Amino acid sequence: MLAFDVGGTDTKSALVDESGRVLGLRRTPTPLDPADPASSVVGGLATLAEAYRAEFPDVVPAAAGLSVPGLVDESTGTAVFASNLGWRDAPLRDLAARALGVPTAFGHDVRAAGVAERRLGAARGHANVFVLAIGTGIAAAAIVDGRPLTSGGYAGELGHTLSDPEGERCPCGAIGCLETIASAGAIARRYREAAGRAVPGAKEVLEAADAGDAVAARIWADAVEALAEQLARVVAVLAPEVVVVGGGLAQAGGRLLDPLAARLDELLSFHRRPQLVRAALGDDAGVLGTALAARDLLGAEPVVAP
Amino acid sequence: MLAFDVGGTDTKSALVDESGRVLGLRRTPTPLDPADPASSVVGGLATLAEAYRAEFPDVVPAAAGLSVPGLVDESTGTAVFASNLGWRDAPLRDLAARALGVPTAFGHDVRAAGVAERRLGAARGHANVFVLAIGTGIAAAAIVDGRPLTSGGYAGELGHTLSDPEGERCPCGAIGCLETIASAGAIARRYREAAGRAVPGAKEVLEAADAGDAVAARIWADAVEALAEQLARVVAVLAPEVVVVGGGLAQAGGRLLDPLAARLDELLSFHRRPQLVRAALGDDAGVLGTALAARDLLGAEPVVAP
Repeated sequence: MLAFDVGGTDTKSALVDESGRVLGLRRTPTPLDPADPASSVVGGLATLAEAYRAEFPDVVPAAAGLSVPGLVDESTGTAVFASNLGWRDAPLRDLAARALGVPTAFGHDVRAAGVAERRLGAARGHANVFVLAIGTGIAAAAIVDGRPLTSGGYAGELGHTLSDPEGERCPCGAIGCLETIASAGAIARRYREAAGRAVPGAKEVLEAADAGDAVAARIWADAVEALAEQLARVVAVLAPEVVVVGGGLAQAGGRLLDPLAARLDELLSFHRRPQLVRAALGDDAGVLGTALAARDLLGAEPVVAP
Repeated sequence: MLAFDVGGTDTKSALVDESGRVLGLRRTPTPLDPADPASSVVGGLATLAEAYRAEFPDVVPAAAGLSVPGLVDESTGTAVFASNLGWRDAPLRDLAARALGVPTAFGHDVRAAGVAERRLGAARGHANVFVLAIGTGIAAAAIVDGRPLTSGGYAGELGHTLSDPEGERCPCGAIGCLETIASAGAIARRYREAAGRAVPGAKEVLEAADAGDAVAARIWADAVEALAEQLARVVAVLAPEVVVVGGGLAQAGGRLLDPLAARLDELLSFHRRPQLVRAALGDDAGVLGTALAARDLLGAEPVVAP
């Protein structure tokens, strides 16, 4: 199988052989022609496929997988919208299948990552899983009763759930979205605004908090509180057995997960309490989940985590 | 089919013939022996089945359906817990099938109502539906990608989602649950506490608000705001196309739904905006959804709404 996890900047790709071995996992720039973003992205996939063919002539892919960010309708194979890629209602599944010459599974990058964490990673063996990717923004995927929720492509927008009805306006247009308080991007921005001092990222805010900076400590605590409250709401409605936290902010490890788990525990009563765990597959989750989707097209051998 | 929707006070039951006609829809007291609540409830089902046999000798049921409140694990047929019925981990599906002598579909009352609203009622034709029952408490059922979410029986507890982190303690043990602000019971109680005057129910609080009572108006507005905020969060994560509002509070009609829809609309941005509609099947939704589940066991004819 060929697997492509296309992002706004880079594309992660891999070739998976019949036994499930992951070969040639790599990251290349996503080619983007603003006049026709779908065609330029698909052209890039064909180029990558050609390179794999040259490098691994013995591995002939019988299927492909493609995952992209934004609003994705798996049922129709349509990339509905992605702010950083610029397409609207692009029939990406069919375009990719034609360019690659093999049946192509098409899906959403974070849902693919969620499926990979469930089948190969931190949530192995659980039918009810919530996966959170906290970076510049906040994305999520819910798996309930063993199935990733899609809802026409609109499911999982935890980053754009209401955290603070009196909060600031999010670039999305709504007020007080979780993403305006608890994304890595928001933590760095809010520190700069409050302390009058720019920092490269959320990591430096945490370091400042650890060094006794009260402003940094407050901003980190605000993020943890907002995440805990939204997760408590998710727990009441979806009851995940495991919450997997990934993305750049998860690099804080226990400094994020420990206070988050403690606060979440306080907010729950009879609810089923989830384990809170760090993502196991890191940046590779998306491309591995995409390979799993391609595999499922064929009923082929399992993908082995590299 | 026989269908039973067992509540803490009453049981709704019906006999459905081969053509899907609903016969003998009725409400009888739920027999409850605190020493063995599961056996007494199942004994009551057998008595009702006997009465239907006498009344409709030509309709021989080939299957039954049973729905109960609380935590229900459909996959194992277990009634995990229900505060108003008193059982714990009761194997109700098997007990009922043995007592009734036919294969029995077992499920959760609000999920059954949700399925009925989707297949016969206010959300007909939609694959993504959120059903809210607002009465003494608040219960909910989510249908996503055409499937009711179960999560081991724990899904859908919108009444026990965090509304106000500085709110009052809910009987469930958590702080600031939606149910403490926006259930019909909470509206009446909060008015009594604020105004020092008892009212029979939420209806009288709305009437007082309409007559210019500022305390009543504030309490009604608090309930609408809390419901709108929680629904906005549900919309971001589950993206229902239709939100069906039922239960006693839905009798307020446009006085509840209009401000709720307006506020929900304000809280959303790129999210898929749901229609907000009143439940169409009323109190019968549970027993009709239960009949549908029984029918599905047999692959039989559709149930026709009475």
